[in-house]
Amino acid sequence: MLDYDLGARGEKSLYEYLYQRIRDDIVSGAIGAEEHLPSKRGLAEHLGVSVVTVEGAYAQLVAEGYVKSRPRSGYFSARLPRQVKRGLPQDGRAPEPALAVSPEPRIDLASGEPGPEAARLWSQALRQALVSEPEAECFSPAPAQGTERLRSAIAAYLRQTRGMDVDPGCIVVGAGAQVLDTMIVQLLGRDLTYALEDPGYPRLTRLYNACGVQRVAHVPLDADGVQMAALEATAADVVHIMPSHQFPTGRVTSISRRYELLSWASAAQNRWIVEDDYDCEFRLAGRPVPPFAGMDAAGRVIYTNTFSKSLGSALRLAYMVLPAELVGRFTDELGFYSSTLSSVQQVALARLLETGDYERYVSRMRKRARERRDALVDALLSTPAAPCMRVEEADSGLHFVLAVECSRSEKDIAAALLAQGLRVAPLSDFVTVPDNAPQVDGLRRFVIQYASLDATAAEEAATLFADAIG
Amino acid sequence: MLDYDLGARGEKSLYEYLYQRIRDDIVSGAIGAEEHLPSKRGLAEHLGVSVVTVEGAYAQLVAEGYVKSRPRSGYFSARLPRQVKRGLPQDGRAPEPALAVSPEPRIDLASGEPGPEAARLWSQALRQALVSEPEAECFSPAPAQGTERLRSAIAAYLRQTRGMDVDPGCIVVGAGAQVLDTMIVQLLGRDLTYALEDPGYPRLTRLYNACGVQRVAHVPLDADGVQMAALEATAADVVHIMPSHQFPTGRVTSISRRYELLSWASAAQNRWIVEDDYDCEFRLAGRPVPPFAGMDAAGRVIYTNTFSKSLGSALRLAYMVLPAELVGRFTDELGFYSSTLSSVQQVALARLLETGDYERYVSRMRKRARERRDALVDALLSTPAAPCMRVEEADSGLHFVLAVECSRSEKDIAAALLAQGLRVAPLSDFVTVPDNAPQVDGLRRFVIQYASLDATAAEEAATLFADAIG
Repeated sequence: MLDYDLGARGEKSLYEYLYQRIRDDIVSGAIGAEEHLPSKRGLAEHLGVSVVTVEGAYAQLVAEGYVKSRPRSGYFSARLPRQVKRGLPQDGRAPEPALAVSPEPRIDLASGEPGPEAARLWSQALRQALVSEPEAECFSPAPAQGTERLRSAIAAYLRQTRGMDVDPGCIVVGAGAQVLDTMIVQLLGRDLTYALEDPGYPRLTRLYNACGVQRVAHVPLDADGVQMAALEATAADVVHIMPSHQFPTGRVTSISRRYELLSWASAAQNRWIVEDDYDCEFRLAGRPVPPFAGMDAAGRVIYTNTFSKSLGSALRLAYMVLPAELVGRFTDELGFYSSTLSSVQQVALARLLETGDYERYVSRMRKRARERRDALVDALLSTPAAPCMRVEEADSGLHFVLAVECSRSEKDIAAALLAQGLRVAPLSDFVTVPDNAPQVDGLRRFVIQYASLDATAAEEAATLFADAIG
Repeated sequence: MLDYDLGARGEKSLYEYLYQRIRDDIVSGAIGAEEHLPSKRGLAEHLGVSVVTVEGAYAQLVAEGYVKSRPRSGYFSARLPRQVKRGLPQDGRAPEPALAVSPEPRIDLASGEPGPEAARLWSQALRQALVSEPEAECFSPAPAQGTERLRSAIAAYLRQTRGMDVDPGCIVVGAGAQVLDTMIVQLLGRDLTYALEDPGYPRLTRLYNACGVQRVAHVPLDADGVQMAALEATAADVVHIMPSHQFPTGRVTSISRRYELLSWASAAQNRWIVEDDYDCEFRLAGRPVPPFAGMDAAGRVIYTNTFSKSLGSALRLAYMVLPAELVGRFTDELGFYSSTLSSVQQVALARLLETGDYERYVSRMRKRARERRDALVDALLSTPAAPCMRVEEADSGLHFVLAVECSRSEKDIAAALLAQGLRVAPLSDFVTVPDNAPQVDGLRRFVIQYASLDATAAEEAATLFADAIG
């Protein structure tokens, strides 16, 4: 049994001290690799502390990868790479890059995953579908575009929340946006130039390359959206944009730029706009920005959206709305595919939409996101470093851009913060072509995703941030 | 000053109505380009509403680009491109093309879906995962290859049931075999010739074409498997085969042909064998045929399998085992993808494999399949038409081939049976190149899938069949 003198913990909390002692023993080898650790209850009794204390310590060890939890077997020490064993840094913090499993930062402002409420909502929806819906519906193969029931539910939801008049026959559901993007390439072709916003999602470049697209171009942004002259210069056939809330800049494509883009799309054969509306539900002030697809009289816009921001990306729930010309092409050329979304998932999602549970959940989540954003912005602007900070595009979705005046580089600041347990993403991480970096004012910029941040963490994050740039 | 009758707003909020009226006036030209709009306070007083209402409307108009705010000057309408003036959003979408829905037959011998027991098993597995497994595991995003837990469970299962020694690090799980086939093309490349067995799955031809493969070739079969001379003649780089139980012929690739295929794969750079082991669990007599991948010392075989035959194709559960050379390539080139299988599904499937529930279920199902095959074969051979019938390849999986002597064509017989409520698939439906049709004996052949057929239906099916060819 693990024996630790908890009286020697100084000012540390019991759980933190216990976590550190076990971690040090795993790193030093005092606890061997793959060793079965005592049960939580057993260790708590042995040390005379509460089970909650041991749970806290174990959870932290699991989160950082020192310990693995195996269902029905308990907890085991991890097998660490050799270099970890060299020793811990003097401040007692984990040597991050050397670990097989990269440790989770204590506060993560670089991830957009929703909290446990999303998991509970989906868990309930799945169980209800399995219990209350016909077995034949949950377990019959779905056609390529997805079940009619789910597509009708999505169409109704789009009508209600986005003002879009969509025929369910134009909708295709799939196991995540990446699957749909892959299908878009199969539909539109590879001998084309696909233009992407830059900064944007570097993964999209990789996806289009993996799909065999002949040329992927990167177009810089101005305040109105993607720069038209630069877009024209790429000779692009397809442009993939996030007009409601560009990631990472947070910008909204202006109405005039939208019409310029529609003109661009109509000016030649086989030009298409892929509208990625990934977090449209989370505009935090005013009405949601109307989707591009609703203005698209010529039928050149492919509208795509996911449930990743609201329900979590682990669920792989996404859909697209095809313009008329592409619906027939989809049926002819890709109609042989099976839907990539299991029928049970389709029934569960349809139920959530039909009952209104999803919409109510989203509006709770939106309210909380607003509170969390306010708490974080307030905390940031209450630090001594406030005069060097500017919060940009805070209203348009689940992230904002924090611009700071600082002599250190973005990457240096991010690395320093990560060492303190706070993860933030430099805006420059999302730039593919260096010349496209939008900041001409010398400010350092960070993409701040705050959806899962509680008030205490907001204070701590703000203090760490202020210290790092001070 | 802008004059609007706010009483006409119906159920809309004041600010939303005001926003829409101003937007419509800008779009219609009633408010000209670059026109100076009234101040927020001035307009609020004029309309008798609060300043907050006007602020809300203006903020929305600014966010969407209809209005620009200029510091110390106030608000101005935007200059919109001409096209906008045509009118507000229109719907250009088409209704779904009318689908040819074929009537549901009473007895379906052309479908390989398992029965309700599969649905119950999966339903239980999903619910248990949601109730008993850590929420973090069910709802955290999974890496491109799938969760380590599921891959370990699959490796253990392959070791136990197929005698394969597979490293979990070589396994990739995905939402159905089609998703994995798409990834195989992304991994191996499109500037290659992919050879398929003919007869085979016509959908595979469509899939490889949709993925942009340069050339898809069709290779005839002989009694040992794919014909080597014909394969060489196609100059194929990749051959996709079903060696354990070819669909639809039911043939097993002989051991000598397997070695010839491995020699073929090693004889040139970048040659690959895709082994599709789709119903290996259901060999009904003797030992299961060992997988090709187990003989593959040179590492040229990509092993693929699904849970569609056992648990149902609506679940979208599949995996592949990559040879060493391709694992690194996968990580480098496709590692950016999210797993297409939701984490809940991965946990549920891992549980089924770990507990042994899956293996026990498969062995019950295999026993029942044998009984059903026997019942159907007995019923067929008890009809007056028995002398004109021959059952081929009845031991190797969940279907056999029924060869009959008859003057009517395969398609005529199938159409006559469908009119009676019995669906059977002519073997010729699976032939792509007419010269590759294997029957040189003048017999008509049908692919008979019996997994979901009960004893009463077997009698009826046999009688109908005998009548149709009599």
